[in-house]
Amino acid sequence: MASTRAVVLSALIAAISSTASAGSKGNDDGVRDARAAIEAANAKFSEAFARGDAKALSAMYTSDAIAFPPDSEMIRGNGAIGQFWKATRDGGVQSAALTTIDVGTSGDVAYEVGKVFLTIQPAGKEPTTAVAKYVVVWKRDADGSWKLHRDIWNSLPAKK
Amino acid sequence: MASTRAVVLSALIAAISSTASAGSKGNDDGVRDARAAIEAANAKFSEAFARGDAKALSAMYTSDAIAFPPDSEMIRGNGAIGQFWKATRDGGVQSAALTTIDVGTSGDVAYEVGKVFLTIQPAGKEPTTAVAKYVVVWKRDADGSWKLHRDIWNSLPAKK
Repeated sequence: MASTRAVVLSALIAAISSTASAGSKGNDDGVRDARAAIEAANAKFSEAFARGDAKALSAMYTSDAIAFPPDSEMIRGNGAIGQFWKATRDGGVQSAALTTIDVGTSGDVAYEVGKVFLTIQPAGKEPTTAVAKYVVVWKRDADGSWKLHRDIWNSLPAKK
Repeated sequence: MASTRAVVLSALIAAISSTASAGSKGNDDGVRDARAAIEAANAKFSEAFARGDAKALSAMYTSDAIAFPPDSEMIRGNGAIGQFWKATRDGGVQSAALTTIDVGTSGDVAYEVGKVFLTIQPAGKEPTTAVAKYVVVWKRDADGSWKLHRDIWNSLPAKK
């Protein structure tokens, strides 16, 4: 009896210790890990965007994701969001390069601040560039991968 | 010895059970509580905005908050954000009514989707209205109050 208790007890103590370490030391590590995963996901996003790959773009969002393009209604669901990006690509936005400025996390949620640099060249026109700022709320899936859950951006002031 | 172990063991089990219940049942309650707190905070925001009360508005944000007005650089820090809202009020935006559409939470972070209805009347002009959509990342303070931490919005399509 006593030895059974000792085994259960040490298992419980081990469980509690690992929880405690995830709560303290784990926080900085968690932010670093989330930021690395988000930057890798952003690189994948840029590649899929340049290809106009609606399926790959859609797979990067949660099923109940919402995107918030300026001058547009909200776009709900990853399928519709993938189509939106493909239509943006087809409309002449050649590339979207993402730069992460700041990441915060809490559990399975991360919020990112960044800037996106666009190269725009509609057929037969001169190329131009544009920059926007954004906030993305990311959610960690059951499989550990981070997905875009809320994606909103707006313009920076026009260069003088 | 055995009885000491039994006491420690039952204390550990109690600690684990309460953690487990916060993790399961606690989630729905957590979202409901956060949403109620956020809606109450939004009502306070509207009141402070209508008064042009930079100090009260500033106190609703975390010290390292960032606001993202369209066609503007990011505004960093709650003091600067309070001043921005006061300047917006002084510029003729009479009121800002906030409607929460969706809230998600993870630990001490909540993310809100909503719409803001503005009444705009610069001195000597006819009043107009405008609507924007927004995402706010809220952070729960040590004292339990929710504060705006990331605040970004953009326009909806013009009414036809």
